[in-house]
Amino acid sequence: MKTIIPAVQDAHTARRNGMRPEPRKRPRVVIVGAGFGGLAAARELAHADVDVLVINRTNYHGFWPLLYQVATAGLEPESIAYPARAILRRYRNADFLLAEVGGVDFERRAVLTDVGEVTYDYLVLAAGSTTNFFGNAHVEAHTLGMKDLDEAQRLRNHILACFEHAAAEPDPARRAAMLTFVVVGGGPTGVELAGAFSELIRHVMRKDYPMLDVNQAHVMLVEATDRILATFPESLQHAALQRLERMGVDVRRNVPVADARPGALLFKDGTELAAETVVWAAGVRAAPLAEALGVALGRGARIKIEPTLTLPGRPDVFVIGDMAYLEGYRPGVAYPMVAPVAIQMGEQAARNILARTRRNPLKPFRYFDKGQMATIGRSAAVLDAFGVQMTGWPAWVGWLFVHLMELVGFRNRVLVLLNWAYSYFTYDRGVRLIFGVGAEPVKQRLVTVR
Amino acid sequence: MKTIIPAVQDAHTARRNGMRPEPRKRPRVVIVGAGFGGLAAARELAHADVDVLVINRTNYHGFWPLLYQVATAGLEPESIAYPARAILRRYRNADFLLAEVGGVDFERRAVLTDVGEVTYDYLVLAAGSTTNFFGNAHVEAHTLGMKDLDEAQRLRNHILACFEHAAAEPDPARRAAMLTFVVVGGGPTGVELAGAFSELIRHVMRKDYPMLDVNQAHVMLVEATDRILATFPESLQHAALQRLERMGVDVRRNVPVADARPGALLFKDGTELAAETVVWAAGVRAAPLAEALGVALGRGARIKIEPTLTLPGRPDVFVIGDMAYLEGYRPGVAYPMVAPVAIQMGEQAARNILARTRRNPLKPFRYFDKGQMATIGRSAAVLDAFGVQMTGWPAWVGWLFVHLMELVGFRNRVLVLLNWAYSYFTYDRGVRLIFGVGAEPVKQRLVTVR
Repeated sequence: MKTIIPAVQDAHTARRNGMRPEPRKRPRVVIVGAGFGGLAAARELAHADVDVLVINRTNYHGFWPLLYQVATAGLEPESIAYPARAILRRYRNADFLLAEVGGVDFERRAVLTDVGEVTYDYLVLAAGSTTNFFGNAHVEAHTLGMKDLDEAQRLRNHILACFEHAAAEPDPARRAAMLTFVVVGGGPTGVELAGAFSELIRHVMRKDYPMLDVNQAHVMLVEATDRILATFPESLQHAALQRLERMGVDVRRNVPVADARPGALLFKDGTELAAETVVWAAGVRAAPLAEALGVALGRGARIKIEPTLTLPGRPDVFVIGDMAYLEGYRPGVAYPMVAPVAIQMGEQAARNILARTRRNPLKPFRYFDKGQMATIGRSAAVLDAFGVQMTGWPAWVGWLFVHLMELVGFRNRVLVLLNWAYSYFTYDRGVRLIFGVGAEPVKQRLVTVR
Repeated sequence: MKTIIPAVQDAHTARRNGMRPEPRKRPRVVIVGAGFGGLAAARELAHADVDVLVINRTNYHGFWPLLYQVATAGLEPESIAYPARAILRRYRNADFLLAEVGGVDFERRAVLTDVGEVTYDYLVLAAGSTTNFFGNAHVEAHTLGMKDLDEAQRLRNHILACFEHAAAEPDPARRAAMLTFVVVGGGPTGVELAGAFSELIRHVMRKDYPMLDVNQAHVMLVEATDRILATFPESLQHAALQRLERMGVDVRRNVPVADARPGALLFKDGTELAAETVVWAAGVRAAPLAEALGVALGRGARIKIEPTLTLPGRPDVFVIGDMAYLEGYRPGVAYPMVAPVAIQMGEQAARNILARTRRNPLKPFRYFDKGQMATIGRSAAVLDAFGVQMTGWPAWVGWLFVHLMELVGFRNRVLVLLNWAYSYFTYDRGVRLIFGVGAEPVKQRLVTVR
């Protein structure tokens, strides 16, 4: 029988409840974050002689690679989220705490949360990343991010409301701004989102809004440098660019953004674009927790770590995934903020913790690069793995397969597969519903009072 | 080719856009509400020589009979909502407007909305119902309603958060209040919800929270009168009561509620119950629009109408569904506020509109009663139709079948069927995710500061 003392229920409170405080027998590993990295560490520790507590600010694991499909009405948010407890209850030594972590007291070995302190013997920090607005408060206020379920649902509500209001808007200039969808940032997220916008408009909105001339709708992908998908080989960059343009996406390169206003985006060259929808996919940075720790940070506010994934001078504290800054590929270039790095770091951190409990030496992190891919639209993707480069239908099927397999939980896989099959055969998007987070504001914000 | 002038784009604004205002050739039927009644009227008018405009405050049709499953983490909200435009775009004469209707100017034949006025030749008012708190502001403030997707999602988030906080709560009295789930009202909604609460706790939460003694969790169904499912035959009332009690639901009859405070419910007999979750399913009343019209109202603030479904003295204005008060069964008893009545009224209103355009006499409404049913839990339901009364597994399968068939849209049917099959075979509930509407408040509200 599994007996777990609730994490924040310490000896003092246990006594108050008439329970005898159980003596702590095994080292406690606290993992902050239930993303790819944190859960990989918990899985690796599942059968070890330690107690594991995962702390997360939501009660689920989010599969963010498919978030852009939630934002474009292709998937319901529920299909890419999986209850953290449903994962952890399979491990006999793991428990979960729903809490927001605000800091760590390294001297007292305590994680500071909004529901109290949690002490640790070993700590794994895996709190992930957040949108990087590069310090521009206007951009933060007047563009839409896409980093969690709420933001994706807000974006979905926003774009659907834009169409509703455009259908009732007599002023051509205002109507054009409502039907202009700008994505800033030519990385995989920006490319995937721009492609999905284009398909949503051409396949679905065209039928839903016969009174609107869909040619008025304008999808734009704005990139500051001269290339999209910069980390991919040049041939794939070119293929992606061609495909996007064939889908009607207006790709603008060498166009750095200077600022944002409500309903408008301002570029460095002084020009301005009226758009009710601007999605900021131009960069990510480590979660705010990184800055709260008082440790040395690298680019993107990521925490500088040792090759063993430990915090310098704190051999019991591990930092992994998007939060960690570790140069590996070549000097000056850190491991990228992607799921495979986080997963492999999580596993290595867990192995190093076990090594320490056994007084064995820690091993440095070594990344096994399985390649990268991005989808652009229906039957269109780019894939670069093990020296092989693919485009078009084979790459797209590879993308579908890998993402379906990586999703946690049978139910979520079937839901996603069902939605994909439905969209593929009907050219429809099932989730074009305005409700939930941000539904009321968008319904009101864009209304023209007459 | 379908050409529709957006509803609020009148001759004046059309001219501003350089369009020639099209002369109005056909009578315009405005339908307020995209529920069962409104959509039935639109469907009946689909091939008629009229223009139809459906106005709704959300962009979807909600299938409310399954709302309690959304509230108990069994279904995602998206699976019981279907985009209104996806329904209406099949009809060549129908258009949709996302707007909130605040009133009607009967003299000028104009519907007053938050995006402007919409004129009509014929009007169908089908705005449905809302929770009836019987004027008690405390009850409204301190209990949870369950009338739309947002409220159901808020309830789901709330009950999941109760378990999370209970797991970290050392005080037994506070923990007991967090694990007490009260449903007020013994009608079909209350019975279904209480049963679903019980199954969620016994099948799912027991595994998710091994540190909590699930016997501490307490599901209570509170009814003011001496019977639950009062509209059903007595044998079925009895069967439902027995079944609920076997599932561990504490059914309290003859216990009228007097008032509510934060975290507590007060009864007429002076006793008090500490509970963090109180769901108010004790009554419904017509949507607020009914009171804004300045017409004669019956019980539950429903609009008194003629047998032809018209407003007295306004033969071009029809009121149907939950909003309509029409005595039919026997003197003094109005048609019940259920989907079949709304659907049949919608069809009759449409036929009467067509009769008027042809200068034929209107026909009075006649209800064809197909019976009623309610589900209690796994393999348990009660069914009363065409003189046949059923309980247990056959009634449950009948309930599943009817509800699946009534759902709009192939995709939604498959989603719901998939969720049901998943829950049936795994005893799991897939959607136990805290996010979206109300997620942040519940995460904070219940936290014990230590």
